[in-house]
Amino acid sequence: MIKRDKNNPIITIKDVKPSSEDLIVMGVFNAGVTIFNDEIILLLRVAETFKEKSDKYLFAPYYEKGKIKKKSYKLNDKSFDFSDSRVILNKARKKIEGLTSLSHFRLAKSKDGVNFEVAEKPTLSGKTKYESWGIEDARITKMGNNYYILYSAISQYGVLPSMIVTKDFCSFSEPKTILPPENKDVVLFPEKINNKYHLLHRPVPFGIGNLDIWLSTSDDLVHWGNHKHLLSVSERGFDSGRVGAGGVPIKTPHGWLIIYHAADKNNNYSLTAALLSLEEPEVVTHKLNFPLLKAEEDYEKEGFFNNVVFSCGEIVKKGIIYLYYGAADDKMALARIDKKKLLNLLIEKDK
Amino acid sequence: MIKRDKNNPIITIKDVKPSSEDLIVMGVFNAGVTIFNDEIILLLRVAETFKEKSDKYLFAPYYEKGKIKKKSYKLNDKSFDFSDSRVILNKARKKIEGLTSLSHFRLAKSKDGVNFEVAEKPTLSGKTKYESWGIEDARITKMGNNYYILYSAISQYGVLPSMIVTKDFCSFSEPKTILPPENKDVVLFPEKINNKYHLLHRPVPFGIGNLDIWLSTSDDLVHWGNHKHLLSVSERGFDSGRVGAGGVPIKTPHGWLIIYHAADKNNNYSLTAALLSLEEPEVVTHKLNFPLLKAEEDYEKEGFFNNVVFSCGEIVKKGIIYLYYGAADDKMALARIDKKKLLNLLIEKDK
Repeated sequence: MIKRDKNNPIITIKDVKPSSEDLIVMGVFNAGVTIFNDEIILLLRVAETFKEKSDKYLFAPYYEKGKIKKKSYKLNDKSFDFSDSRVILNKARKKIEGLTSLSHFRLAKSKDGVNFEVAEKPTLSGKTKYESWGIEDARITKMGNNYYILYSAISQYGVLPSMIVTKDFCSFSEPKTILPPENKDVVLFPEKINNKYHLLHRPVPFGIGNLDIWLSTSDDLVHWGNHKHLLSVSERGFDSGRVGAGGVPIKTPHGWLIIYHAADKNNNYSLTAALLSLEEPEVVTHKLNFPLLKAEEDYEKEGFFNNVVFSCGEIVKKGIIYLYYGAADDKMALARIDKKKLLNLLIEKDK
Repeated sequence: MIKRDKNNPIITIKDVKPSSEDLIVMGVFNAGVTIFNDEIILLLRVAETFKEKSDKYLFAPYYEKGKIKKKSYKLNDKSFDFSDSRVILNKARKKIEGLTSLSHFRLAKSKDGVNFEVAEKPTLSGKTKYESWGIEDARITKMGNNYYILYSAISQYGVLPSMIVTKDFCSFSEPKTILPPENKDVVLFPEKINNKYHLLHRPVPFGIGNLDIWLSTSDDLVHWGNHKHLLSVSERGFDSGRVGAGGVPIKTPHGWLIIYHAADKNNNYSLTAALLSLEEPEVVTHKLNFPLLKAEEDYEKEGFFNNVVFSCGEIVKKGIIYLYYGAADDKMALARIDKKKLLNLLIEKDK
């Protein structure tokens, strides 16, 4: 059903120049995808950290007024837990105090969808106080002449779904926060439904509720309401830990096709698919009860965070879905699916 | 500065008739407050549970299609943790599986603001699937002829800020979810500012961020955006654990006066105050660095949940703020503050 590209991984950290001399690239993954000027565009998430290492300190990068600054943590400071390589944990508050890497967005272009030219410099970086710990996981939706980039803004204030608009990937609107924290995996439908814009998102609740996908509506793309629960984790199995939207929903005669990520309770990620009603996207009409793709190849099983396949976008070309996905949180990979076969599978499997 | 009413607590469970014969009232607290037809109106949160007790089972009430149903948990079922009297905890998921009591809203009316007549029957109960575990902590804002009731809808899907509108407290609009989960302590400003409606809310983040107060704007009261961080917990002291909005912000020449709750890291609650800029309410101009009121009286220190003072509303009458508050999560109490003195305190203390 799904075929990995033989050149996988198609982009790795070797293909990405650090944004300054004192930084190194830790990962390039979870790219938003669209078509612009007949080229396939990836808006890559590039994670960087300081080149300088020390036995006594951990150096964490962050943005302040658009510049990258360094925060030093003493490794023997008992108030912090450094055991998770991705985060600095404040033990007393049981809260994340900072990230060990800082993400920005980098443009990459391709004619064939496999060989990409990666921009030399960051395309978008953390700008506001809500982005001081970086920007992550873009999804790009085209409507009219506008490209809407939805992403997670990260800072001490939380994880906030945010939006930037562009017509040309050269000049960009100011960022706007579109949902309160803690929430991520936001993606906009490519057209209005029942005269409203629609959005998928994945709240991260503290006490009650699971890591499920929700649907909301808007008249202006900035203010969102009518929040509805859409798609649940399962009791057990590959999607029992979390689910979250992937790329832009694909309109088909059978409904809105969504390819989304799932993980089990041990953070083993996979990609799977569902169909939502065209007229009432709050209704899930069909859903696969198995993964389309799970971490099986070495480049998916080993990396910055192991056993992750995570998609923020796909394009459809001559009936083939080009599914771009982050592998083990540090590389970009590509897999292809025949759209018709996937639709048949969805419709049959749910009978 | 603040004076408790000599009749405190002014409403207790003895004053509230259960909504059916098989239920008992566990608490009456956290009432929304407004003035309607020259009377002071409280929209009480009434928490109930089943009268029937068993050594082998815990019986949890919930709403299904507007009716109260019973769910039985075996007390020897090792998958649950029953140690917190308020909730049933799923040990594997580390998530709340259900509540031990079910809350609805009950109207109470008074001419003098001290002696209240409590309605015989529930005024509003859980109606939608987002309210199957009850409705909690109403705040009432009057604009034009409409009263906007903002509250927390509780269910397996999470804690969702929701809104119901009424003109007469007899007929009510359908509930609408206005912010995604997990979020609570929502209250609407009593007028538009810069041509936008404004809302205070308190997200409950999982991984990053604190239990802080946020501000959002809307054109239509249903769709919300431009989420801004407003007021933080402190590093230490009475407000180091959480803060959350109380009643409707009071317009004064010095700014929007907000009386809000705070708690330290051990869940000792108090009430305190701040001033927000009239024109730019995202700016906190003054803030008390001590409690106005903390749990000191027996009825505040002992109850369903100890050491809680929690306000969802106040009214101002001849320069006196009548601050209504829930005490120990099971009674209603009243305290009075001279508005002018409080404003002077705020303005002086912040110099």
